Amino acid sequence: MSYDFYYWPKIQGRGEFVRLALEQMGANYTDVARKKGGMEKMRAIVAGDAVGALPFAPPFLKDGDLIIAQVANILAYLGPRHGLVPADEANRIWAHQLQLTVTDLVQESHDTHHPVSTALYYEDQIEEAKRCTERFLELRVPKYLSYFERVVARNRYESGTLIGADITYPDLSLFQCVAGLRFAFPNTMTRIESDYPHVIALHDKVINLTNIAAYLTSERRLSFNEYGVFRHYPELDA
Amino acid sequence: MSYDFYYWPKIQGRGEFVRLALEQMGANYTDVARKKGGMEKMRAIVAGDAVGALPFAPPFLKDGDLIIAQVANILAYLGPRHGLVPADEANRIWAHQLQLTVTDLVQESHDTHHPVSTALYYEDQIEEAKRCTERFLELRVPKYLSYFERVVARNRYESGTLIGADITYPDLSLFQCVAGLRFAFPNTMTRIESDYPHVIALHDKVINLTNIAAYLTSERRLSFNEYGVFRHYPELDA
Repeated sequence: MSYDFYYWPKIQGRGEFVRLALEQMGANYTDVARKKGGMEKMRAIVAGDAVGALPFAPPFLKDGDLIIAQVANILAYLGPRHGLVPADEANRIWAHQLQLTVTDLVQESHDTHHPVSTALYYEDQIEEAKRCTERFLELRVPKYLSYFERVVARNRYESGTLIGADITYPDLSLFQCVAGLRFAFPNTMTRIESDYPHVIALHDKVINLTNIAAYLTSERRLSFNEYGVFRHYPELDA
Repeated sequence: MSYDFYYWPKIQGRGEFVRLALEQMGANYTDVARKKGGMEKMRAIVAGDAVGALPFAPPFLKDGDLIIAQVANILAYLGPRHGLVPADEANRIWAHQLQLTVTDLVQESHDTHHPVSTALYYEDQIEEAKRCTERFLELRVPKYLSYFERVVARNRYESGTLIGADITYPDLSLFQCVAGLRFAFPNTMTRIESDYPHVIALHDKVINLTNIAAYLTSERRLSFNEYGVFRHYPELDA
């Protein structure tokens, strides 16, 4: 089985949540837009040249004739096929709920540097970004991290993961959120991380998974930069 | 089968997308927080008093012992059980993708009046809201509506719906988006609606479904107001 994965080739962005899952499952996949001619293929699918499901935007996954867009939707498809979520329905629903909560955190993280519009440069909305980020770091990051902290603490398997006894795809996504928040807001994260010991321990558990560790040191892992979801603007990190 | 549905009792908000589905499927459900003592029950579950899945926030659905949060997750659960989505996997994935795209539109609609922070009053971010809304109405609403327009136009069943031959849950949600955008931005919608004839025809098809029509004229349907996702502030609707 081989997947074609489509996302912007120069950023981690939302696509990284899918890349991490593909890597952890050891999947055979092509990161299409990073290959020669790949951007044209991606644009053609978004333009509607393929039959069937029309993506609103990247990322999307192609598995044979099936095109699947939206990160959480892709992960809900891949998870059960590769053992990255328990097999029973209740846990699959629970994993998806957690993933959609990650989606919300990712959206709010992105909004910190583009609170007015993605159609404007950051430089044209710095003052709004400062106001937005101040409250994001004071109120929202603690709300999300304390939520995930409670979820890990409540897991009756005491596995240090969000769900059940093993690693599931939302664990990988939560790792990416912690890594992204650390990149974007190092001062804030240094100050608050000790409030979320389970979340940080889970981050460390994920970073040491054999496949993830190999991925993170490979050239397949792009660096964080100022074009993705998580961006480091020192003026926003008080 | 009877469901307990939990959401804020005074607004349509995100919960309305679930209410519309429950109504269309003729489900037996209780809108718990609108009953006496219901708010306390809702708060207790968010506080973690129930075993199992912990919601980050309302809305959530309780079906026996199963607690399901996040609108799109709830709809993905209900859809196949009540014939509001085709039975095959490809169409269920497609429906969910469309629903997650609706989720993004809803989030952006909410951000227009709260671009800085949900922790601040609208009155404390009016100038930012004006800047944000201007671009939302100029760029984002047309992008979303033209996307859904294309999806209906491409449906090879020529049913006037998003997927297949019949009404599915994303159709109900798209109806709610059109109704909400009309409430919030009547001038803009009057000006642009004719660009999206399939979307408007689908809105009209949904509003005339027997169960939906009965719901919309019942007291179960709350009014749009200035506390939900879609809010009418004349200064934002040029």
